[in-house]
Amino acid sequence: MGKKRPTILVVNDDGITAPGIKVLIEEMQELGDVTVVAPEGPQSGMGHAITIGKPLRIDPVHIYEGVEMYKCSGTPVDCVKLAVNKIFRGRKPDLCVSGINHGLNNSINVLYSGTMSAAVEGAIEGINSIGFSYDDFADDADFSKCRPYVRAIAAQVLANGLAKGTLLNVNFPNVPELQGVKICRQANAKWEEEFEERTDPYNRSYFWLTGVFKLQDRGEDTDVWALNSGFVSVVPVQFDMTAHHMIPQLNSWSFGREK
Amino acid sequence: MGKKRPTILVVNDDGITAPGIKVLIEEMQELGDVTVVAPEGPQSGMGHAITIGKPLRIDPVHIYEGVEMYKCSGTPVDCVKLAVNKIFRGRKPDLCVSGINHGLNNSINVLYSGTMSAAVEGAIEGINSIGFSYDDFADDADFSKCRPYVRAIAAQVLANGLAKGTLLNVNFPNVPELQGVKICRQANAKWEEEFEERTDPYNRSYFWLTGVFKLQDRGEDTDVWALNSGFVSVVPVQFDMTAHHMIPQLNSWSFGREK
Repeated sequence: MGKKRPTILVVNDDGITAPGIKVLIEEMQELGDVTVVAPEGPQSGMGHAITIGKPLRIDPVHIYEGVEMYKCSGTPVDCVKLAVNKIFRGRKPDLCVSGINHGLNNSINVLYSGTMSAAVEGAIEGINSIGFSYDDFADDADFSKCRPYVRAIAAQVLANGLAKGTLLNVNFPNVPELQGVKICRQANAKWEEEFEERTDPYNRSYFWLTGVFKLQDRGEDTDVWALNSGFVSVVPVQFDMTAHHMIPQLNSWSFGREK
Repeated sequence: MGKKRPTILVVNDDGITAPGIKVLIEEMQELGDVTVVAPEGPQSGMGHAITIGKPLRIDPVHIYEGVEMYKCSGTPVDCVKLAVNKIFRGRKPDLCVSGINHGLNNSINVLYSGTMSAAVEGAIEGINSIGFSYDDFADDADFSKCRPYVRAIAAQVLANGLAKGTLLNVNFPNVPELQGVKICRQANAKWEEEFEERTDPYNRSYFWLTGVFKLQDRGEDTDVWALNSGFVSVVPVQFDMTAHHMIPQLNSWSFGREK
């Protein structure tokens, strides 16, 4: 047809050698021309961190046949910034996909997740972006059930585009059979921290961050509900964090300094 | 009156010795009992990062007379988590304030900012939270113009409370005279990266992340507009990142796997 194949940027937060990114690369190769820019090591929990105080390195690597790949010393968000500025050099990719993360990034995890922050950065750059995450931390996690959905969702985004300022957060439950796709809102939930205290060989205490995920939302339109019911959850995400509904109330407050 | 003084958690991302946190501590001491938990060193640009792969330390320090202070080895968000779990131990503070940051955190910077992410984490923990930032990076920045507003805004939040799931992002322009407070929305803007390439002594290239702030928003109801006009900008922020307006559209897409 002579139609140009779409260009697709693949990124993640588990690092360029993680099994999840390999699956994502393979599925994206079915849809377009793939370029990978991913952290050289694990960057889980990095949120929307960027590297300010130290320099960044980006170097080509050859891991998967026929795929242009670069490893980056920085965070997932750094990877997207470097990809746009130094690899794509202004010609924007048609799609930015992040993942497939080992572990869910549903609900409030959208804030902590390097996977999702990379996708958010893609959207800030004006690129159609999707983050994918699967509920399996194992190095030999079996992503085969996710594959057709990853490809179908990416194809839909390429075909329809996403509204400006938005992206998708896609999560896969670890169930014998996926029940289909549910479009959801982010569940209201939080992590209840449980710091585990230990003592080092010098008799000083230190802490490991652990926690329990606490759902505070009875809605059946949330990503947590969908995942618990065996569905692939798709949450449209925006990076305008304004609580617009609070503006009228705040305008009634007096700060004692109005002119 | 026998009324209990409010308890106030103070945190920042510039580190516990930064001038900005000293100003915030002093102003908060006028309103309540202050506890400080702040990073031992600079953590700018850390966004909502948390420390997963390595242990955390938190140790008491004595810097300012009569203030309970702890330095933490982790990110700003780690500080809030440790404060709630290990210092306040369940009795939640009445207010969590973050800053005063050296440099603005308006518009899209809410995502990159450790200052704002600490305040977001406070709100996730169910604490009334505010982030403060001032447009002056200098170590001898003069915060005196900010002081009455910092105190007035914190007092209003203590008196009225904030809606669940929301917090405030307060920014001060660097102008001779502040014009008052404007309640705003987050301006639509982005950083246009300009990576500066250098060569190391081993002849390998590396990059420094720099950028230019690009406003893409003509609205006069934004934080950028307010700051450019000499006002203190107050943006109500929420951590539900769902793009609710996209849900109907996405429900019309076919993913080929519906039951």
